[in-house]
Amino acid sequence: MLDVIIIGSGPAGLSAAIYAMRAGLQTLVIEKHPMSGGQVLNTVDVDNYPGLPGIGGFELGMNFRKHAEDLGAQFVTAEVTGIEGVKDEEKVVVTDKETYRCKTLVLAMGATHRMLGVPGEESLRGMGVSYCATCDGAFFRGKTVAVIGGGDVALEDALFLARGCEKVYLIHRRDAFRGARSLQQKVFDTPNIEVIWNSEVDAIEGEETVQMLRIRNNKTGVKQSLSLQGVFVAVGITPETKLVRDLVACDANGYICADENCKTDIPGIFAAGDLRTKPLRQIVTAVADGANAITSVEAYINTR
Amino acid sequence: MLDVIIIGSGPAGLSAAIYAMRAGLQTLVIEKHPMSGGQVLNTVDVDNYPGLPGIGGFELGMNFRKHAEDLGAQFVTAEVTGIEGVKDEEKVVVTDKETYRCKTLVLAMGATHRMLGVPGEESLRGMGVSYCATCDGAFFRGKTVAVIGGGDVALEDALFLARGCEKVYLIHRRDAFRGARSLQQKVFDTPNIEVIWNSEVDAIEGEETVQMLRIRNNKTGVKQSLSLQGVFVAVGITPETKLVRDLVACDANGYICADENCKTDIPGIFAAGDLRTKPLRQIVTAVADGANAITSVEAYINTR
Repeated sequence: MLDVIIIGSGPAGLSAAIYAMRAGLQTLVIEKHPMSGGQVLNTVDVDNYPGLPGIGGFELGMNFRKHAEDLGAQFVTAEVTGIEGVKDEEKVVVTDKETYRCKTLVLAMGATHRMLGVPGEESLRGMGVSYCATCDGAFFRGKTVAVIGGGDVALEDALFLARGCEKVYLIHRRDAFRGARSLQQKVFDTPNIEVIWNSEVDAIEGEETVQMLRIRNNKTGVKQSLSLQGVFVAVGITPETKLVRDLVACDANGYICADENCKTDIPGIFAAGDLRTKPLRQIVTAVADGANAITSVEAYINTR
Repeated sequence: MLDVIIIGSGPAGLSAAIYAMRAGLQTLVIEKHPMSGGQVLNTVDVDNYPGLPGIGGFELGMNFRKHAEDLGAQFVTAEVTGIEGVKDEEKVVVTDKETYRCKTLVLAMGATHRMLGVPGEESLRGMGVSYCATCDGAFFRGKTVAVIGGGDVALEDALFLARGCEKVYLIHRRDAFRGARSLQQKVFDTPNIEVIWNSEVDAIEGEETVQMLRIRNNKTGVKQSLSLQGVFVAVGITPETKLVRDLVACDANGYICADENCKTDIPGIFAAGDLRTKPLRQIVTAVADGANAITSVEAYINTR
């Protein structure tokens, strides 16, 4: 029986693997794709992971993977189809290939950003299309950008970007924001943010990098083209928790309820990274979760 | 008036500086010593910062510093002597050189490990003397080591080390542990842990690296020499919070009360890194705090 199975191999899962190996735990990482790194792999430049400025996302993902592997971590590529005996001392992880037994589980399946589903979004991703202002905003200093969305994150992103960008369009499909009133007021008071109501994106265009945003007023049908260099999509993210929603407590949005010690409501099952309830979803907070989760795993095992 | 003053330039402070610069905040870092990095600087090898396996502590500290500096972060070397107007919109930081005004403060002064104060401890630090089993334990696989202490951390360190080391001496100056009963049981049940009661360390000896531990029974006066390669000192850590203990809420041990969002009980004042109440004090959790603290700084500024 393994000490710990880690499901997922983004920054949280790989950091958990590093800490588990250094703690001498019998560890297995189960990853869906043969390529570790999670969302990081699709990030062109990462400039906010302290100590590795300007590293490519793919390279950073590979670095994390190699770090875990060099410490002896074992990986299998398989799709987890079920988890059984969650409240037993021996938990069973069923995959499309084999079945594995373990004392503890670290859930680190991550999250995915919701997409607009418009032409140009996929092809210009990382070339001006971004899903994270905190991650990528600094690359657009002095430029013109648009934020798409109307919740707290969209408003915060617009305010964040307005500090460095020449101009920020904030494009929302309704005529009122869902985001906090105080944030709204700040947005309205910021001279270089222009709010465009009742509008949806038809396409993102550009040769190599983003140059133009085509939008349409959904009341009047009037079309408009905005010349800009960046598009920040802030229409929500979805935690990858379908597999465990009936096993551990989740909030209304599907995030696993767990604070920084990564403990779920089920002893021996821990949640690390973007899929748990937390204030900030970043590479640096994901790797911290990996360490915290393994510390909680050790505390659990130490007292059995 | 600055948006944020960061006091301290260990991993938490430097990560906060990186995030603050990328967020376009007017930022100043005040550091006591002209050399950034905090405790990391005294760490010989760091092998648990994901993505940079086996990096030297000094090099990692310099990497963090350079990352922040390249983004334009400003540093001053000065000793903070007082903080005034903590509840005002404009907070005042008084140093032995100048006085600075800011909207928000990130407290990141860190913590220091308590030392035994015996011959050889200082000179063999990083050469077999360690204050962190989670950080350094993996370097002692197959070796014989001693843990000094009797609290939860000492017991956890002994259990952690026993998984990889051939033999672990657990040396405690009293005849009973303060640590949790369940941990005690596990320690007693682990065959390669030998508990030595009522004993204190007289000296740590070795040429270049640790070779011998001299201990003395404080009841009988009998002296004993243990041949070993590592000594893990787990007699407590002290947060560097003297400056602020009357300003923000701290727990009985002097840690600033703040959860992962880094918010203290005073709006606009945030605590990041080893000096706050948290489950795990590691480089990787310190850098996460820096990011979380700045996210909270932005939320505070956004709603003023």
